[in-house]
This record gives sequence, C-alpha cells and structure tokens, in this order.
Amino acid sequence: MSFQRIAIIGVGLIGSSLARAVRAHAPTTDVRLYDASPDVRVRAAALDIGAVAATAEDAVRDADLVILATPVGAMAAATAGFATALAPGAVLTDVGSTKRAVVDALGKLTPEHAFFIAGHPIAGTEQSGPEAGFASLFEKRWTILTPQEDSRPGYADALARLSAFWTMLGARVEIMDPDRHDLVLAITSHVPHLIAFNIVATAEDLETVTESEIVKYSAGGFRDFTRLAASDPVMWRDVFLANKDAVLEILGRFTEDLAALQRAIRWGDGDTLHEIFTRARRVRREVIEAGQDSAAPNWGRDQSAEAGGEDKG
Amino acid sequence: MSFQRIAIIGVGLIGSSLARAVRAHAPTTDVRLYDASPDVRVRAAALDIGAVAATAEDAVRDADLVILATPVGAMAAATAGFATALAPGAVLTDVGSTKRAVVDALGKLTPEHAFFIAGHPIAGTEQSGPEAGFASLFEKRWTILTPQEDSRPGYADALARLSAFWTMLGARVEIMDPDRHDLVLAITSHVPHLIAFNIVATAEDLETVTESEIVKYSAGGFRDFTRLAASDPVMWRDVFLANKDAVLEILGRFTEDLAALQRAIRWGDGDTLHEIFTRARRVRREVIEAGQDSAAPNWGRDQSAEAGGEDKG
Repeated sequence: MSFQRIAIIGVGLIGSSLARAVRAHAPTTDVRLYDASPDVRVRAAALDIGAVAATAEDAVRDADLVILATPVGAMAAATAGFATALAPGAVLTDVGSTKRAVVDALGKLTPEHAFFIAGHPIAGTEQSGPEAGFASLFEKRWTILTPQEDSRPGYADALARLSAFWTMLGARVEIMDPDRHDLVLAITSHVPHLIAFNIVATAEDLETVTESEIVKYSAGGFRDFTRLAASDPVMWRDVFLANKDAVLEILGRFTEDLAALQRAIRWGDGDTLHEIFTRARRVRREVIEAGQDSAAPNWGRDQSAEAGGEDKG
Repeated sequence: MSFQRIAIIGVGLIGSSLARAVRAHAPTTDVRLYDASPDVRVRAAALDIGAVAATAEDAVRDADLVILATPVGAMAAATAGFATALAPGAVLTDVGSTKRAVVDALGKLTPEHAFFIAGHPIAGTEQSGPEAGFASLFEKRWTILTPQEDSRPGYADALARLSAFWTMLGARVEIMDPDRHDLVLAITSHVPHLIAFNIVATAEDLETVTESEIVKYSAGGFRDFTRLAASDPVMWRDVFLANKDAVLEILGRFTEDLAALQRAIRWGDGDTLHEIFTRARRVRREVIEAGQDSAAPNWGRDQSAEAGGEDKG
C-alpha cells in the first residue's frame, strides 16, 4: 500500500465506506476526513473511522492521496478551496458518477505539483450519510479510472498507485475515456435511476389510485423502483446536470423503444411482446455469471431461511 | 381449513408454491396437480408436492377447490376443458395478474353448480417452473379477490372459505372490483415490468455500448431491471394483452412525466429535478413500514455478514 496519508473530502455513503475499507485493509494508514456540513463532521467523528479535520486544507495538508467524495456539483468549489494546500506529488482523485465535467473542471484546478486522476467506483446503496457506509462496499465491484493525457514523469506511477489502492479495497479497476464512461453509465446507471424516480412520482400523482394502495401492492414490482428512487436527491440532481448529453441520448432510445412496445400492446401484437420479453432473460443470466448480482430469487428478501430451505425442490 | 381436495391447474412458480404452502399449513389436504405440458407434469411428479393427474378433468373431479395457475391467456381454454367435471358446490378461482378479462371469460364458463371467485396473490419471483416454487411465497403478501355479483345462497360462504384459505397460507386478503384491480396493478406491477423489459432491450440494442460493458457496470442500477425482466415472457405477454386499457392509461402518464424530467435536464433545471427526486423517499419509507420490502441496504445482497456486521456505524 503506497499511500500513507489519505484525505477524504465528503463523508457520505461513499466517503465513509472508503474510510472504513482503508481501516480494514491498511490499518496503519492515516485517514483524515472533512465534510462541508458541520453536522456531518460531528456524526463522522462519532463513528471513529478517521480523524475529522476542521477545514478541507487541514485534511489535505501532507496527504499523498486526496479523494473527493462530494456530489459532483460541489467538487470544483471544494477543490478550489484546498488546491494550494495539496502536497507536492499528491494524487487527487474523485468518486463522482459523471466524468467529463469533473475532468474538465478539476483538471484546470489541480496545481502543477499534484496529479489529478478522475475515478468512479460502480458501487453504492440507496442510503446516504456517514452512518450508511460499510467496508465491503467496493468488493467485486468495478472502479473506472479516467486519467488525463499527462506526459509528466510521475503521472503513470500515480495511476499505478491509485489502481493498486482500489484493488486493495477489493475492487476491479478499468481504465476508460471520460466520454465513454459517461455514455456507458448513462445506460447502466443514470437512466435506470431517472425512470425509477419518474415512476414513483407518476404513482404519487395519480388521482385514481391512492398512495396506500400503491404501497400495499408494491410487491408486484413497484417496490424495486422505490429503492433506487430513495437515493440521494442532491447527488442525482448533479449527475443529470453534469451528464446531460449522454442521458438525453439514451433516454431518446428508451422512449422510442417504449413507444414501440406501447403500440404492440394497443394493437394486440403478442408476438412482438413475447420476442422482446424473451431476449431480456439472457442479459440477466450474464449479469449473474459476471458476479454483478445475486442469483437468489427476489434477492432472497422474501424467503425465510426455514421455509426456503425445506421447500426448494 | 374447509377445503379437503384441492386441484391446481398449471404447475409453475405460483402453482407449485400453492401446493407446497398447502402441504406446509394443511398437510392432510388432498392436492392434485395438472399441467398442459407433459414435461412439466414429469418434473412436478418428481417434486412430490401433490398427485399429478393425467388430465385436467381427473385433477378437478371431486375437488372442492380448483385453482387456475396458468398464464391468463390460457385460462378460458383450460376451464372449458374441465368445466363439466367440476363437482357440485366446487369453488373455482385463479391467480392471474389481470382480473376483468378473466372474470368476463371464466364467469360464463363456470357451470351453475359451481362458484367462481377470481383472485390474484401479489407475490412472485423472477423465476419460473415447478422447481422455483416455495411454501412461504404468500406470507405477508396481499391476495386480492374480485368476486362476481352472485346472489346464490352459497356464494358468500364460498367467498368466506376462499378468504380463509389464503389467510391460512399467510396472506392478507382484500376484496376489490376487477376494474379497480386492473388499474391498481397497472401502476404497481404491469408498467414497472414493462419499463424493465424495455430498458433491457434498449441496452441490448445500443450500437455504442457493448453488452459486456452493460453487464460489467450493471451494479449502478441496471441490474435491478434485469431481475424483473427475467420473469416469464408468456405470462407477461398475456398480462399486457388482457389489461391493455389500464396499462396504456398509466403508460401515458409515465411518458408525460418522463418528458417533463427530460425537459428539466435539457434546460438545466436543477430545482425541478431535486424536488421530484426528494418526493420519492417518502414512498420508499412507507413501503418498508408496510412490511412490503426489506429495509436492508441493497436488500442485503452486497454485504457479507462479516464485513457488514463489524463496520456498520
């Protein structure tokens, strides 16, 4: 483990999971935390997952790795605030869900004596705040790094050290162009969240079905969308503002395909429905085989250990 | 438990779960099974969850409760095939996901000497086939019954006995009008499945993102949709054909709301995004408080017991 002092700016689900994961995998590492919210700083201090600094400058001073874990819309202002305090040779990275906007903004703000390498761990839960973090969050998940074009001698070494850091936490690392990252994540994460937020809002607004009915019968499928839609609203607002082009492109494809399904329903075209519904099973199998989801029916949430165990054929 | 001989027609996830649940809660009940597929009949027999009959008539003869658990599109033909073999006073019910089309078709086919009461347990998993069933599937889930207007003396008693049957299996029972059922389920189940099927198809068809990328980074949210979209294609084709009007109505609202979100993204209207994203959290909380979903982050699927246990703050 080549980093000795790590500063984490933003102590929510991801920041606090990073602090816990570092403690679990490299217990001698010095971890310093800072959050712009005084309330979050107090709560983070109570968790005993790292030393909480009073200012971002105090947190990053002498750190050889600085990780930004704020919503992406807050990253530029945060970086501008502590940039001059970055140590010579320090590696600056982030965990934001969009990469082109972050790369463009933070690339300019990083001082000459430091190395900026943007990143994104594809991991999370629907919960927020420092209490929601846990050390195993990144295990078996992919972390995408989107390095700059930077020919300085130390840059390749900084990238290798940052990759090794994520591998140490249990993640698998992939290098990608920031624009490609934003397109891939638009379909695998951003648009799925958008339609989850949207259907929950649609359901709430219906005059013809009560909220209590929606809640009672949500096990029919709707409940899954409520989980995604419970994610942090500020984080997601920033994602959609920062990844507008890719999200609109994927959304255009989604609504076009949905219109075709709608037409098939209207005209009673069962063959088209059956053909499209059948194709999805293969993708599900691949997701499970790739270790990216549990194979347990309903993710095991409905099955008591006793009943499930004795009755499975 | 007032039913002594139960016939289950259609031995998939729901039918085989019913057989297992009856065995668990009323072990002396005589359970007979029939499936139109010879292969499924062989597999069902191997599970030892009830006597497998060679014909539907053999299964229903002398049964005091007959449960149709086929896809809704197959129910009318199945009922026409065994109707004359129904015992006097027999209760005929179903578990189909749409109710108006089933009520209209099966109401006419039920002989004078039997009682038809349509039903729908709001329970299931993404898996299919007789091996996928388990006894606890209906526990804490709602079963909706949509009785006919039927003034015959035995009808109210038949309804009371059918309600007691579902309660015995751990379900909660609600009485509802079939049209209302179809509208409520369109938002809580049918449209959620449709958009899950749709986004998986959209992702597969993208020329700009490979399937392997989609699978690798699916933990960002997409994987949840692949689970819903892995459900049985024939069952779902029949649902959309049978509940066309309500599905198209809800789908119209969904796409209208999605267009508003799309516009907010295009014009950088962060306040609108934040406002809509914030509202969804309350619904999530209500779903959990109503016992309709697990409160564990990510449904617990990503957290090893060790790592999760020691690190939660």
